[in-house]
Amino acid sequence: MREPLIESVEEPEESRKYEAVLRHIENGIIDGSYRAGDSLPPERDLAASLNVGRSAVREAMRVLQTQGIIEASTGRGGGTRVVPQQGDALARILRLYTALHNTGMVDLIETRVALERVSAAEAAMQASKATLSNLNGVMAEMREANSVEAFNPLDTLFHVMVARAGRNGLIAELTVAIREAVRRPILLASLSMDDWTVFKETLCQEHGGILLAISSHQPDLAADRMEAHIRSAYATLKKTGM
Amino acid sequence: MREPLIESVEEPEESRKYEAVLRHIENGIIDGSYRAGDSLPPERDLAASLNVGRSAVREAMRVLQTQGIIEASTGRGGGTRVVPQQGDALARILRLYTALHNTGMVDLIETRVALERVSAAEAAMQASKATLSNLNGVMAEMREANSVEAFNPLDTLFHVMVARAGRNGLIAELTVAIREAVRRPILLASLSMDDWTVFKETLCQEHGGILLAISSHQPDLAADRMEAHIRSAYATLKKTGM
Repeated sequence: MREPLIESVEEPEESRKYEAVLRHIENGIIDGSYRAGDSLPPERDLAASLNVGRSAVREAMRVLQTQGIIEASTGRGGGTRVVPQQGDALARILRLYTALHNTGMVDLIETRVALERVSAAEAAMQASKATLSNLNGVMAEMREANSVEAFNPLDTLFHVMVARAGRNGLIAELTVAIREAVRRPILLASLSMDDWTVFKETLCQEHGGILLAISSHQPDLAADRMEAHIRSAYATLKKTGM
Repeated sequence: MREPLIESVEEPEESRKYEAVLRHIENGIIDGSYRAGDSLPPERDLAASLNVGRSAVREAMRVLQTQGIIEASTGRGGGTRVVPQQGDALARILRLYTALHNTGMVDLIETRVALERVSAAEAAMQASKATLSNLNGVMAEMREANSVEAFNPLDTLFHVMVARAGRNGLIAELTVAIREAVRRPILLASLSMDDWTVFKETLCQEHGGILLAISSHQPDLAADRMEAHIRSAYATLKKTGM
């Protein structure tokens, strides 16, 4: 007989209590009563005010800590603070979501097009001189990269830097998360190509065209070139059976 | 002196062990070795194979269970299965992300435009007869709604139904999540209007125009009308100080 993995199977009541703590803190964050940097009440106070056991509070804290929503202060005095959530949590959930739903490559591509058109346009309007010179640096490295393993991280980095060049943090994090979700299939498809160097040459030309549109502050052109690049790259990768 | 809320403050080692279990299962899901419907190994086997304590395995399971990634089987024999993650987890993380980052309304609007243009276009190409008649039903209810409290949930529902009318589940869930994140500010701004009925009339006309474009299978028109609607509604709401 299989041994149950999760204690809440035997303790639905306890599990509901721990969910209650979770919802209390999340709702507090959403309605603004807990802001980034705020300290949360001590475990015993939360347990008392929510009428649950301290173990329920601890479990809820573990979940929030794992999601990078709270962090334990390391200094003497302890305590727990709400921290600005990293995009990582978003990327993590999106990776799991797309994996569990077998989100098709077509859906991922359409989502990338929707988001990266905006990223490219925002970058063309707002990219700083520093960002442009960093993008040029990545372009140079891409041209010099002689293996799929060396090239693909730079390809991802280029898209991530474009996404972060704009002012819209939400679009940037969503773009990064979706780009992350397609990184592995793109890598595998690239490795399976008969002549990857031809593909690499095309990718470098397309990235160069996007960067030129961004550097010359042409948002519409940057968006159109980003969309054309994503679609043509996918069309080539698809031939490998991706 | 503040009492530490989280045991891992005193046990970083234990915390790292529990993170290790989490990563093991997540990576298994991402690389496809754990698929939706699969049973996970029993707690003792996971603990042994990962060389951690069973408490670390239990904590990791709690986190994954909360995120709707696994569920405990209720039948005799117990065990834990991977389940298709609900969009709720995505919406939840996005709500927390936007709250903790004080994501500006402008960023949210631009993200909505990017996603809902695609949602509207996909709906125009793929909406079923049933979906269209449901959308018409919601439109009728919106016209009859005489209070902000009655109208706003229908407004949200309209956008959610359009998002789900297309075939692209990822775009739909992202659209729903972002729409959820702006629901409350839109409600508060609407309540603060001197003459909300004028605004309501405009919203009904705009939604009607979007629905007409979707029903007549004109993707570009549907996308343009969706964008115009989101921007004009925001411009009006902004006057209230939203």
